[in-house]
Amino acid sequence: MRVVVNAAMSADGKLSSKRREQIAISGPDDFDRMDALRAGSDAVMVGVGTVLADDPHLTLDDPERQAARRDRDESAHPVRVVADSRARTPTDARILDDAATTYVLVSESAPTERIEALESSGARLVTAGDERVALTDALSTLEREGFDQLMVEGGGELIFSLFEAGLADELRVFVGPKIIGGRDAPTLADGEGFVSEFPELELADVERIDDGVLLRYSVE
Amino acid sequence: MRVVVNAAMSADGKLSSKRREQIAISGPDDFDRMDALRAGSDAVMVGVGTVLADDPHLTLDDPERQAARRDRDESAHPVRVVADSRARTPTDARILDDAATTYVLVSESAPTERIEALESSGARLVTAGDERVALTDALSTLEREGFDQLMVEGGGELIFSLFEAGLADELRVFVGPKIIGGRDAPTLADGEGFVSEFPELELADVERIDDGVLLRYSVE
Ligand SMILES: NC(=O)c1ccc[n+]([C@@H]2O[C@H](COP(=O)([O-])OP(=O)(O)OC[C@H]3O[C@@H](n4cnc5c(N)ncnc54)[C@H](OP(=O)(O)O)[C@@H]3O)[C@@H](O)[C@H]2O)c1
Ligand SMILES: NC(=O)c1ccc[n+]([C@@H]2O[C@H](COP(=O)([O-])OP(=O)(O)OC[C@H]3O[C@@H](n4cnc5c(N)ncnc54)[C@H](OP(=O)(O)O)[C@@H]3O)[C@@H](O)[C@H]2O)c1
Repeated sequence: MRVVVNAAMSADGKLSSKRREQIAISGPDDFDRMDALRAGSDAVMVGVGTVLADDPHLTLDDPERQAARRDRDESAHPVRVVADSRARTPTDARILDDAATTYVLVSESAPTERIEALESSGARLVTAGDERVALTDALSTLEREGFDQLMVEGGGELIFSLFEAGLADELRVFVGPKIIGGRDAPTLADGEGFVSEFPELELADVERIDDGVLLRYSVE
Repeated sequence: MRVVVNAAMSADGKLSSKRREQIAISGPDDFDRMDALRAGSDAVMVGVGTVLADDPHLTLDDPERQAARRDRDESAHPVRVVADSRARTPTDARILDDAATTYVLVSESAPTERIEALESSGARLVTAGDERVALTDALSTLEREGFDQLMVEGGGELIFSLFEAGLADELRVFVGPKIIGGRDAPTLADGEGFVSEFPELELADVERIDDGVLLRYSVE
């Protein structure tokens, strides 16, 4: 399964402000590019931090892309996936509405009543790992469901873990012309951080979009 | 005085690892570009965090650029400047050697014995601000010394303060093909962070250099 990480960051590497408030970093052309990338993916994933901060819907915007997927005998929208060790996704989160199928990846530490609540909300639960979601195992499960391309939209905690586990195949970053600043603001890759053997990328393409630039990397 | 901020960051916006260890982010062509930018500047500035972490020399590498400056009746190297509120720069720091003149910007909170030690090491002291260096005042003093272009090489705390004070005119960022990661790793702009009225940039130029990309912005 191909894992494509896609995010928009400020010129100083931030995904949002220290208040974890969503900030307009990219513009209409980059949104459209993202929508197309979603449309070409079997599943779209975020961490529960992003669900709690932004309550994203993760569905396709463009009705023609939805129709094209239906014409190919696919669901109108790609499957949605949340990495959520303790099953904290609120049952009224947009990601759990019935526009698309949603997988919640949890760990053994998730409370039974939360798991039941999510199942009642229609989510499909995948358990992997003791305290935190074991991403390698959880993604193998998704691969066995027949998913060929997984798009990961953030945030920085999840993205770091994917790089740490060697699971990311591609990175696409829109760099917006803004300074957000802040020692505590979320960045493209947070987590513990590497101190050696930094994941190396190969810059495949550079393209100006909106008032920023899109950098496409493959992971070496 | 034109203030040009220049730094190298990883694809996730980090200037170094969480251990604050210097990491090779750019390559020989970007080093050469930086050397040329230094050569064209009257002064090169860093924060004391960078002095303590990296002990940089901040002089020109290329003998021809030094000779060219001498031919223009300038010093071989640009003046070096440290923002160092409490005068913590060690007297044996490379930045204080006699290769070039060095200004240490301090605040009223700097202990007298530290100021005397730095003066004995040949540094020129500029005092501005109570607890922290008041950058607007300190940079006005540098401007009155006749400096037309100040290059700022980091780190992220100083860069944030310059944007906060509206003092940065240009930003040049080399984005290297690496993931450093880490909630606590220094980023291009740290400090408190903005929560609204984010400084807006204008992307003036995009250029592939070494195995990365150089983004040049003017500050709006
Ligand atoms: N600009 C953009 O493109 C963009 C995109 C997305 C998000 N954002 C911003 O990013 C911020 C949220 O990012 P975030 O980093 O806080 O959250 P995140 O990466 O979305 O979610 C992190 C959470 O996922 C859970 N998780 C489960 N398994 C994990 C694993 N193996 N590794 C890492 N995390 C795992 C953890 O919570 P548990 O331990 O409870 O499971 C963790 O705290 C928000 O401010 C949002 O606005 C921006
Ligand atoms: N990749 C690159 O291009 C690059 C370039 C430079 C540095 N770095 C890395 O960046 C890290 C150091 O960065 P840093 O952010 O910790 O330190 P920094 O920005 O170099 O220095 C910050 C310090 O400057 C002093 N300062 C004085 N007046 C200030 C003001 N008005 N605003 C902000 N700071 C002021 C403060 O100490 P006082 O309060 O004691 O004065 C502050 O802690 C190191 O890991 C280094 O390797 C990387």
